[in-house]
Amino acid sequence: MTPPTAQQDLTSADAILDAAERLLPRFGYKKTTLDDLAQEAGIARRTIYLHFPSKEEVFLRSIDRVVERLVAELNAIASENASAEVRLWRMLVTRVMSRFDSVRKYQESLDEMLADLRSQYLERRETYFDLEADVLAKVVDEGRRKLGWHVEDPHETARHLVIATNALLPYSLSREERGSRTHVQTQITAVASLLLRGLQAPAAGVVRTRSARGQG
Amino acid sequence: MTPPTAQQDLTSADAILDAAERLLPRFGYKKTTLDDLAQEAGIARRTIYLHFPSKEEVFLRSIDRVVERLVAELNAIASENASAEVRLWRMLVTRVMSRFDSVRKYQESLDEMLADLRSQYLERRETYFDLEADVLAKVVDEGRRKLGWHVEDPHETARHLVIATNALLPYSLSREERGSRTHVQTQITAVASLLLRGLQAPAAGVVRTRSARGQG
Repeated sequence: MTPPTAQQDLTSADAILDAAERLLPRFGYKKTTLDDLAQEAGIARRTIYLHFPSKEEVFLRSIDRVVERLVAELNAIASENASAEVRLWRMLVTRVMSRFDSVRKYQESLDEMLADLRSQYLERRETYFDLEADVLAKVVDEGRRKLGWHVEDPHETARHLVIATNALLPYSLSREERGSRTHVQTQITAVASLLLRGLQAPAAGVVRTRSARGQG
Repeated sequence: MTPPTAQQDLTSADAILDAAERLLPRFGYKKTTLDDLAQEAGIARRTIYLHFPSKEEVFLRSIDRVVERLVAELNAIASENASAEVRLWRMLVTRVMSRFDSVRKYQESLDEMLADLRSQYLERRETYFDLEADVLAKVVDEGRRKLGWHVEDPHETARHLVIATNALLPYSLSREERGSRTHVQTQITAVASLLLRGLQAPAAGVVRTRSARGQG
């Protein structure tokens, strides 16, 4: 058997992930087998094993890909021509809504997928949050330099923005809570606005972080 | 068989929940049986069924009790003699750290418990968040009336504060992330400070909610 070239590798890995995305809404997570994935992707079952050791790994990689696309989207917003606060606000809203939309077609089976993959997902999540925080930090730093935001460490602050919006990611919501796109959007919009007001505010409130107190 | 009086009812229901709290760190969630609970509580197995239809229900009620205690704690802080911002900040930190401490002894089995009870937990969670938001809303409203915070609907804002700190609740963290009390405390402290700065800030940032825009 000839080993696949790097190009073939990429193509069939992506074809398998595309198949997983199409099959989830149809069969659900539990009922989708490696055979189904191979058939849907139009490849032999053994070809899947060249790329993924298990069905679980296919779906975890599929979540990775959702995040990779999101990070590209965040980078695009970071490079736009708007003010730092507008871009940062949009990035916070996008990190929630882009994920919402990416799982929208398989709402039904998201819970069974998470029940099975929860601990592996939680491990990988740290990497996702770091990637996102890296992009947010650039804009936070810009706000600090150009707009005088009271931020000591842009990357730390970016992590806090990630934390403060994480509870609206699909993973954290019940199926019922995920039911209404408008509701999720209203919530992330309001939370992002509150956080942006916090970033723009003078660091002179009664409740201050230790660093702010030192500077004040 | 004589039915138990209301007093006996309460006493043995609490005794069963106490037993559940003691057994979790010892046996873990999966291995704890209704027989273990009865023996630990010093009651007959059939007495458990007078109070709880299943082992799952015992543990769900035990989570309810953690939240009931927390809400009492939040009410106590709300009634203290400090300024609204100091009290609100402490309430946000407390809603995270109190839960952290309540599950600290059974870190190991929290994940197996959540894997089994995830959907029931998520359903009940809405009620928990409402109870907490009710208490937070009182202090937010005080801040609006006495300190001029730009808040349109105190209960809405309280819900946003709940959302923005929810990602630090034990349920949302991986076992590794739950490992360091100091780390969680550093994060909630910083997030709560950022949110409080947002509440105290003039509603005049470039990014505003629709209502703020209407007023401006």
